[in-house]
Amino acid sequence: MATPRISALPSSDLLAVCRGDVPADVVFTNARIVDVFSGEVVAGSFSVAGGRFASVFEVPSGHRPEKTVDLGGAFVCPGLIDAHMHVESTMMPPSTYVTLASPHGTTSVVADPHEIANVLGAAGVRWMMENGTGLPVRFLWTVSSCVPSCHLETSGAALGVDDLRELFDHPPQGAEIVALAEMMNFPGVVHADPAVLAKVALGLQRRVVDGHAPGLRGAAMQAYVSAGISSDHECTTAEEAKEKLRLGMKVFIRQGSAARNLEALLPLVTPANKSRFCFCTDDRHPADLLHEGHIDHVVRLAIRDGLDPVTAISLATINTAEHYRRTDLGAIAPGRHADFAVFDDLATFVPRATYSGGELVAEGGVFRGAVKSLNRPAGGGVTLPSGLSEASFRVPAPATTPGAGQVRIRVIGMDPKQIVTGHLVETAKIEGGAIVADSSERRDLLKLAVIERHRGTGTIGLGFVRGFLFKEGAIASTVGHDAHNLAVVGANDADMLLAARTLAEVGGGQCAVKNGKVLATLPLSIAGLMSDRPSAELIARQHALHEAARALGCPHADPFMPLSFLPLPVIPKLKLSDKGLIDVEKFEVVGLVV
Amino acid sequence: MATPRISALPSSDLLAVCRGDVPADVVFTNARIVDVFSGEVVAGSFSVAGGRFASVFEVPSGHRPEKTVDLGGAFVCPGLIDAHMHVESTMMPPSTYVTLASPHGTTSVVADPHEIANVLGAAGVRWMMENGTGLPVRFLWTVSSCVPSCHLETSGAALGVDDLRELFDHPPQGAEIVALAEMMNFPGVVHADPAVLAKVALGLQRRVVDGHAPGLRGAAMQAYVSAGISSDHECTTAEEAKEKLRLGMKVFIRQGSAARNLEALLPLVTPANKSRFCFCTDDRHPADLLHEGHIDHVVRLAIRDGLDPVTAISLATINTAEHYRRTDLGAIAPGRHADFAVFDDLATFVPRATYSGGELVAEGGVFRGAVKSLNRPAGGGVTLPSGLSEASFRVPAPATTPGAGQVRIRVIGMDPKQIVTGHLVETAKIEGGAIVADSSERRDLLKLAVIERHRGTGTIGLGFVRGFLFKEGAIASTVGHDAHNLAVVGANDADMLLAARTLAEVGGGQCAVKNGKVLATLPLSIAGLMSDRPSAELIARQHALHEAARALGCPHADPFMPLSFLPLPVIPKLKLSDKGLIDVEKFEVVGLVV
Repeated sequence: MATPRISALPSSDLLAVCRGDVPADVVFTNARIVDVFSGEVVAGSFSVAGGRFASVFEVPSGHRPEKTVDLGGAFVCPGLIDAHMHVESTMMPPSTYVTLASPHGTTSVVADPHEIANVLGAAGVRWMMENGTGLPVRFLWTVSSCVPSCHLETSGAALGVDDLRELFDHPPQGAEIVALAEMMNFPGVVHADPAVLAKVALGLQRRVVDGHAPGLRGAAMQAYVSAGISSDHECTTAEEAKEKLRLGMKVFIRQGSAARNLEALLPLVTPANKSRFCFCTDDRHPADLLHEGHIDHVVRLAIRDGLDPVTAISLATINTAEHYRRTDLGAIAPGRHADFAVFDDLATFVPRATYSGGELVAEGGVFRGAVKSLNRPAGGGVTLPSGLSEASFRVPAPATTPGAGQVRIRVIGMDPKQIVTGHLVETAKIEGGAIVADSSERRDLLKLAVIERHRGTGTIGLGFVRGFLFKEGAIASTVGHDAHNLAVVGANDADMLLAARTLAEVGGGQCAVKNGKVLATLPLSIAGLMSDRPSAELIARQHALHEAARALGCPHADPFMPLSFLPLPVIPKLKLSDKGLIDVEKFEVVGLVV
Repeated sequence: MATPRISALPSSDLLAVCRGDVPADVVFTNARIVDVFSGEVVAGSFSVAGGRFASVFEVPSGHRPEKTVDLGGAFVCPGLIDAHMHVESTMMPPSTYVTLASPHGTTSVVADPHEIANVLGAAGVRWMMENGTGLPVRFLWTVSSCVPSCHLETSGAALGVDDLRELFDHPPQGAEIVALAEMMNFPGVVHADPAVLAKVALGLQRRVVDGHAPGLRGAAMQAYVSAGISSDHECTTAEEAKEKLRLGMKVFIRQGSAARNLEALLPLVTPANKSRFCFCTDDRHPADLLHEGHIDHVVRLAIRDGLDPVTAISLATINTAEHYRRTDLGAIAPGRHADFAVFDDLATFVPRATYSGGELVAEGGVFRGAVKSLNRPAGGGVTLPSGLSEASFRVPAPATTPGAGQVRIRVIGMDPKQIVTGHLVETAKIEGGAIVADSSERRDLLKLAVIERHRGTGTIGLGFVRGFLFKEGAIASTVGHDAHNLAVVGANDADMLLAARTLAEVGGGQCAVKNGKVLATLPLSIAGLMSDRPSAELIARQHALHEAARALGCPHADPFMPLSFLPLPVIPKLKLSDKGLIDVEKFEVVGLVV
């Protein structure tokens, strides 16, 4: 993209174009303009100059513009904004991500780079921000508040309040900061941990502070709000969302690849409260981006489920811009960035062209912008504990076991559609003095290991999980929220070891192995999180990987997604980090055996 | 008011109260809480600690609070906020003003101190800001953008961009700055005057920039919006407001003493666009404050005219707080300032108690707070031109006049209900070589003089006005927007001179004289704009003054109000400043004779 002629308002160039004294760069005629302020659709024209909207609805006729585009009666809406997402979850860096997101009408995303922050710290964040500049999707960065997510896992790096201040006050050139990112450590807030409150205070002094409080209700929720935290994207029920709404939180309705809350929350949106909601994806996988779409997909679903189309578009545009105090985005209005999408029907809402800063960047589902060259950041690979062997995966049975050959243990109940897990207590088999996996369909107790991969500390957490349903082999991933240690789930220790070694060899990624053979590998050479390959290659390799997982007997479309959330010790209920089993409600490490 | 225990969020004290671990200062039970987020009224309790709301709807039962107040089923709404006002127009400094505003449920006002700024400059602004701290009505200051209003009048002081920056960045201790105040110089913006744009740029860098664009439409309006200006309180018709709304301006519906736009604009407010409106008074006179009310009056009128009561309250609370990015105000929610009003009926909306920072500050229409002691600022009186005499008011007729004994002149058409004037051309009498007033009811052409009073420059503007309808005598005022020169309107030059001298003697104010006698004087010893007396005394003296004006034959309830706006050269159409007659549409001085 060319550097826009107008970098800040007020602009005398833009004023002159609005007055009609100077010709616009482009005039778009014959449009039906979605006006998110009045809630109307207004037929008319609009002009663009220096990357900004100049005249809207009516264009002064005095001068012939450089160029005219007849939109033939098509609808035009503000470019779509994702209110909260982690670009790392798409397994693409920003510069690749935009090639998939742009064709869906997306022109801005509010991104929290906390995945790379957990691996590479502030340097990784700066690398992401630099990669995210000058793209046809505007990256509005939030500064990651919880790196590591908490003390219950070992991350590759930590961000203290001084690091956050430095990012707020001295971001890389061209990077835009809009908020302190989701404050996931809600127990730390509620119980007034001074280090946590210092970060919240910094965020409030600088901008706004986003929340993350899954299932938090009642007095604890009120405490969390009292700290000044003003959004939440973790509501899963209308009842929970209603409680948060009434307390003044903006409710971000999340419809991602992992968590899909639209259906549950949409009935809550009314004309009286509609300004209090935004749409976000949080985590979106590359194939879903390609095939289903991005925020356009959420808007389509909302319209299908009965939401007024202009309201649905507002939740994807102006509401988000206003939450983040960006008066230069989110609407088709004089002075704002000329980011917009063109579509033919309010009921079906399929963006067929996307403009960013007034330039056509995608058309007919195809990215038309320039692809930015990519430099990989240093570090972020896999360092396995020295001497890692099959024995490292052995779970010794307690010395005195009441029932002969079996033991009552805590088991993570994995639901492939949720990132919240169950906290089960099940009977496990003991063989040769060790608690072992039982991959029978009836039992479905697979072994799970989380291996610290950043600093060679050698810590390994071991546990058991129900829900993967595969009969043999193992799958592994260096995407493992939030510390992104190496997570491996398997039916036997030998395949688990092979899976871990396979990922160490490729510097991070995901793989599936079976009976001593590697079935498929997806290398993620950027911090073990993102691919440096074009999106089509990434999607093809990921597809092969999912096929391989099915060859193990796993019935789920994508078992790597739930696997990647099993280590996350801030989402209820039972999780496994490199430090062991975590009871999230008690917020402490608990023993495997009950 | 005591210094609140909690000055900024997050607060570990407040968190402990929300959790139920520490008792609240006060618990209010049995309330019907207006929730401006969800648009609902919710029955419940709420608690206050350190001046902030702690728990809302439900209060943890663990601890006995210091105090409990049973509200007996009354409604509670967030404290009302005036989105735009000039406290000088009440003729009271902030510390007196609050004694009248508090009983009406007002807990915050967004104030532009541009009247005192025109008289005393930054020092006057600082005096106002200091006077406005520690009061039970929170003063949210905007930094005056247009002092003087333009080059077409002589003010006592000017504020350049460096002065504004200093006020933004180093306000007096405790003073809160929320915006660059109304950018009245819309021609300067539209035509890209660099000095004007520098102020807008400063405002955008620091906070938001409020607008003021009466009647501005079409291409010029689009240019004005393109500069980044985001509100307007000058709409007088629904059509004008709709145009501004669609362009993204927040429409402040003004219902003051001078301009009353509610009836015209209210039909525009719909569920789809209601978040885009706020209520303001702009200019409110002391007797109106006492008898009709403040923002509560606007809410009452809106409800009477059919607006949903909770929506009406939202326009007076959360919408304004959000426009000014004050997430600590405008709602009854954990962590926000405990500013609220108690009332018994949604349809009639009469606040019967007002709480600021959780303390009762007014009840049953009576101010209950402490009255702050008042220091007057230095300067700001009246310096008349040396040698001012009756002859100074003489308007010589042109040397060659076509019609014998009469001449065609421009006449200001004053409408006592509008601050916009007409630009008339009328035939005036010539007597003794001078154009003279004609106070016959049929003609009603009174003489108007605007005398520079701040720096003894000796400049006097002379003209004629229709609309006052008085037969004899003169009235004068040192309140004369925006430069606050001495404006005097009269049926004869002798009384005009006496009126001017009377005000010089008392150091500024307003008076009425008749046949060489002073009928009434209202001294305004603070900058010639505000009284240093209690509100009751001010109102009584103002009442006597208005009675005196009626004794001149003037039929209007308050002729001083329209008089005070006649000098304002940024409100159409024809005005008179000390520099002469101003054609506001041409934005230049024009001759009297056509």
